[in-house]
Amino acid sequence: MKRTMSYGKADVWVYRTYAKPLTGIRFIPESTFTGRRNILFGMNVKVAVEGDAFFSSFKEGDNTLVVATDSMKNFILKHAGDYQGATQEGFLEFVSHRLLETYSHMTTINISGEQIPFEELPVPTNGSFEPSPLVFRYSLNEQAGASIEVKREKDEIATTNHVSSLKGLKLIKVKGSSFFGYVKDEYTTLPESFDRPLFIFLNIDWRYNNLEDARGNTPDGYVAAEQVRDIACTVFHEQKSPSIQNLIYRIGTRILERFPQLLEVVFESNNRTWETILDEIPASQEGKVFTEPRPPYGFQCFSMTRDDLKSDGESNK
Amino acid sequence: MKRTMSYGKADVWVYRTYAKPLTGIRFIPESTFTGRRNILFGMNVKVAVEGDAFFSSFKEGDNTLVVATDSMKNFILKHAGDYQGATQEGFLEFVSHRLLETYSHMTTINISGEQIPFEELPVPTNGSFEPSPLVFRYSLNEQAGASIEVKREKDEIATTNHVSSLKGLKLIKVKGSSFFGYVKDEYTTLPESFDRPLFIFLNIDWRYNNLEDARGNTPDGYVAAEQVRDIACTVFHEQKSPSIQNLIYRIGTRILERFPQLLEVVFESNNRTWETILDEIPASQEGKVFTEPRPPYGFQCFSMTRDDLKSDGESNK
Amino acid sequence: MKRTMSYGKADVWVYRTYAKPLTGIRFIPESTFTGRRNILFGMNVKVAVEGDAFFSSFKEGDNTLVVATDSMKNFILKHAGDYQGATQEGFLEFVSHRLLETYSHMTTINISGEQIPFEELPVPTNGSFEPSPLVFRYSLNEQAGASIEVKREKDEIATTNHVSSLKGLKLIKVKGSSFFGYVKDEYTTLPESFDRPLFIFLNIDWRYNNLEDARGNTPDGYVAAEQVRDIACTVFHEQKSPSIQNLIYRIGTRILERFPQLLEVVFESNNRTWETILDEIPASQEGKVFTEPRPPYGFQCFSMTRDDLKSDGESNK
Amino acid sequence: MKRTMSYGKADVWVYRTYAKPLTGIRFIPESTFTGRRNILFGMNVKVAVEGDAFFSSFKEGDNTLVVATDSMKNFILKHAGDYQGATQEGFLEFVSHRLLETYSHMTTINISGEQIPFEELPVPTNGSFEPSPLVFRYSLNEQAGASIEVKREKDEIATTNHVSSLKGLKLIKVKGSSFFGYVKDEYTTLPESFDRPLFIFLNIDWRYNNLEDARGNTPDGYVAAEQVRDIACTVFHEQKSPSIQNLIYRIGTRILERFPQLLEVVFESNNRTWETILDEIPASQEGKVFTEPRPPYGFQCFSMTRDDLKSDGESNK
Repeated sequence: MKRTMSYGKADVWVYRTYAKPLTGIRFIPESTFTGRRNILFGMNVKVAVEGDAFFSSFKEGDNTLVVATDSMKNFILKHAGDYQGATQEGFLEFVSHRLLETYSHMTTINISGEQIPFEELPVPTNGSFEPSPLVFRYSLNEQAGASIEVKREKDEIATTNHVSSLKGLKLIKVKGSSFFGYVKDEYTTLPESFDRPLFIFLNIDWRYNNLEDARGNTPDGYVAAEQVRDIACTVFHEQKSPSIQNLIYRIGTRILERFPQLLEVVFESNNRTWETILDEIPASQEGKVFTEPRPPYGFQCFSMTRDDLKSDGESNK
Repeated sequence: MKRTMSYGKADVWVYRTYAKPLTGIRFIPESTFTGRRNILFGMNVKVAVEGDAFFSSFKEGDNTLVVATDSMKNFILKHAGDYQGATQEGFLEFVSHRLLETYSHMTTINISGEQIPFEELPVPTNGSFEPSPLVFRYSLNEQAGASIEVKREKDEIATTNHVSSLKGLKLIKVKGSSFFGYVKDEYTTLPESFDRPLFIFLNIDWRYNNLEDARGNTPDGYVAAEQVRDIACTVFHEQKSPSIQNLIYRIGTRILERFPQLLEVVFESNNRTWETILDEIPASQEGKVFTEPRPPYGFQCFSMTRDDLKSDGESNK
Repeated sequence: MKRTMSYGKADVWVYRTYAKPLTGIRFIPESTFTGRRNILFGMNVKVAVEGDAFFSSFKEGDNTLVVATDSMKNFILKHAGDYQGATQEGFLEFVSHRLLETYSHMTTINISGEQIPFEELPVPTNGSFEPSPLVFRYSLNEQAGASIEVKREKDEIATTNHVSSLKGLKLIKVKGSSFFGYVKDEYTTLPESFDRPLFIFLNIDWRYNNLEDARGNTPDGYVAAEQVRDIACTVFHEQKSPSIQNLIYRIGTRILERFPQLLEVVFESNNRTWETILDEIPASQEGKVFTEPRPPYGFQCFSMTRDDLKSDGESNK
Repeated sequence: MKRTMSYGKADVWVYRTYAKPLTGIRFIPESTFTGRRNILFGMNVKVAVEGDAFFSSFKEGDNTLVVATDSMKNFILKHAGDYQGATQEGFLEFVSHRLLETYSHMTTINISGEQIPFEELPVPTNGSFEPSPLVFRYSLNEQAGASIEVKREKDEIATTNHVSSLKGLKLIKVKGSSFFGYVKDEYTTLPESFDRPLFIFLNIDWRYNNLEDARGNTPDGYVAAEQVRDIACTVFHEQKSPSIQNLIYRIGTRILERFPQLLEVVFESNNRTWETILDEIPASQEGKVFTEPRPPYGFQCFSMTRDDLKSDGESNK
């Protein structure tokens, strides 16, 4: 059994102003997103370090080689001032490599971040409205995430794994979703629905073929979480869905089609669909009344690769 | 000492589809907001009822006159299907009057709601992008709130109090705020700042002169929470502020100027300003690095009426 | 309309070690509680200050008289080291008076606290188990609360209001509660129950006749939140209840009987009762299966004074 | 790349009354715990099912083989009424096997639970105080957790993995902890401390050699989360610690010594130590004042097996 042994710092909130703008994002038909100004670039970072040399700190209480997690926090904040790039992926990898360069007894770094969405707000500007370059809305909605693993291998420091993500997207479609035809047995009480509102939570991960795209150094290759969000929204909007399972399959197909630079896309979806209270109401022809459901919620976990595209006759291009 | 005695239901989540659109909103220079389609109209409602007749349920455990709170929940949901209007204020007042009409032993209703922001998402439509009429983002950001008090007075049912609100607005201004010149004594450790980023949480309440405006029945008179948000954002954007105290005073002045139909505006603000870590950084001329502060946060509570406008030489019109 | 105008600091976490023990608590039949060692004495404090002199800070942005909220935090922490007493009420009043003594332009202080429960854990000690004097459990369960209002009146500083509280008590009684006989009409769908489990959240406030008791300076007069909790639990345990309304009436009666030093007791209760899934099960004669209910919850707000005791024939002594 | 594909239900709250008591727990010197009455036995359950047959539900939207997650919830609740045992581990395994027996196209079940701590409250009984058999405190403090993996292998259904846990233990030791001797470099700002209070969050996992012990069918072999908690508390109480790393090593050693039936113990610890504000205070010789730290927190992840005992000269027995 391999021993688990790591330590580190979490909830390291990094806010960097006037970072390099993210530009050159390739247009896709589903999205108006073209870039981020990065006037505010903020993340909640978690870092864990590994190395056999740390074993004596556990067994013997010998702190000689322990880099205090407080120092790790300082290290991350200091390097936020040094970072010249425009993406969270780039920053996390940059910090991780620097950690291994600085501390020769560390052998692996696992680092992840959740980017704070600072939404633009239009203000009156020259007789029209333009996004303020000064005031932003700190948003609690969906976030871009990233995880990076960096290892010391022989005499080299190599990035050995990476994931980019969209986390916490909450989308509700008013009508045009169904769920029927499932197994009926003694445990079944759910009525079939042929036109239900569908409310989903979505986490979407993706992995690149070439890390250089993830860093944002080839901006044409960078996949922005905003574009992934817009693909999810557009596919949901366009198509009637017979289940969340099938909906995420179609969203995944579209993402892989749009972004040939991606190897894999992974979904974690939740069903948060409301309970129907009134199916017909006096005040409106189409209107209905719903309420929050009981606490239990359904979920799906599903990954897709480019192989799924090949086998897929249907194209959405 | 007057006895407190009420009971009711909270967390009644009401989702109504295809409610009447909110239209005819008067344009103000600070905002592009012109209405809500109300394809999704959702609220979290809390209702409390009063009446001397309920005393025996407490003292004697006599449930004869007790309307179960479960029935109150059903009442609210049922009336969501009957409501013909376009505003939360209108709906809450409608339900409250109906409650007093239905249950003659109830004498006062206190009801409040927090409206769920269903944000529009642009989808490809006829070669361009338009807000989807089907898919919406369930947003966790700022909300419109409303509270209504309705009383049985002699033989009449009257709305005796009302407040409309914007809750949980989180705005960060990158630069152009200061805080200096305050009391220095043995308890002072805060350094003065002459150009700090300022991060505020804002709750803003307003009260109308004429309830008919609050209901949205004179849409030109309705004050949308989105417009209040945009005034807050614009004033914050336009002006350098020496303190949150003064900033909210200016925002309040602007709100009262724009909306002569309002009697009063009340602020609850929080200071969530980041801690500066690096004031100068290698990677950028203007850039800095900040982090989350310690948990304690400053706050302000402040109300203004039209009298404050009169005494105020400065006009922002 | 009186203007609201105050400002202050919230989430001031104060942890004081080796405070004066709370001793001399009078025994009551419902509780084994006899005191707190106060080896750890922790609170989350919120303070708001008022004074007409602060108006210019709002209107003019003149900070000359502004005591920074950061300094208020320092003030509170510093005085935690000076406090010689054993109760939260005493500490909050002590700090408030000192604030008014120190800052002559402040006229009212509203301060409140929530005390962190550091629960004792038994450790092996001399062949038996005793509470550790070193290690404690930081508990998230019910808390003792306190609010104090202090005003400058002419040349005196006076404590003008006070409330002590138990917050967030969560009690579940497995059987022996009913709810029937309530109003049945078109909005009623709740089935009557004659023996339900009852799960309640309770906040209980109390006010003393003589503030000196609240301070804990006459320890025989101090009402510990733990004793109030134990009364609530005991009354709930002993009696079958036909509703939460009646249950809290009986708890209130008992509290007022036990503590003649109290003027008033105020309840805020929630009904969080589970939904019954299986009323009879194969595996057990008495056993049943329940699940969490839908989100809406019922609540009650109710206050009682000594007058209620007089009119109450039934005695529980 | 193996495809991720599963779906299921989370937040299935199961409350079972009068489950079989957990008895026969072997005494250990660190704990007074001897069993649970299980009058209330409550869990929050999450289940995920796998099977290649579900692929068409994703790809084709074919629901023919889909067991609705609503039915899974019903399945779990129904089986809570059938379960004859006394442990969460036993219940989760029981349900999982039943799922595979019932649905032949499911091949793997991953199920986990967090047990709700219903704490006993003493009530006056026959002139003394005894735990009420009717009223319990719903506690938000540390919980017992369990995870079970069950697979269909050829013609058999086998439990292929299991973990038992204690989650969310929050312990604070007032004095007798130090942290010094760590790496000092340009990123170090943390001062060494030779006698600090130490506040830790702990999650502890353990794995049994023989699953029959985990089920609680050999109660002498069952390891109760309460005993693990008490070992953690006792070791923390008894020993001065030079770091959390070393503290958890010692706790792990003690757990493995006490429970030869365990293969492995895994820690996830957090450092939530307060910031010192006043190291000496007027009001007390020993007393100090602390406050909540900034948000970043250190953490450790560490696993130990019986091999660590062998190599460990020091014995704590």
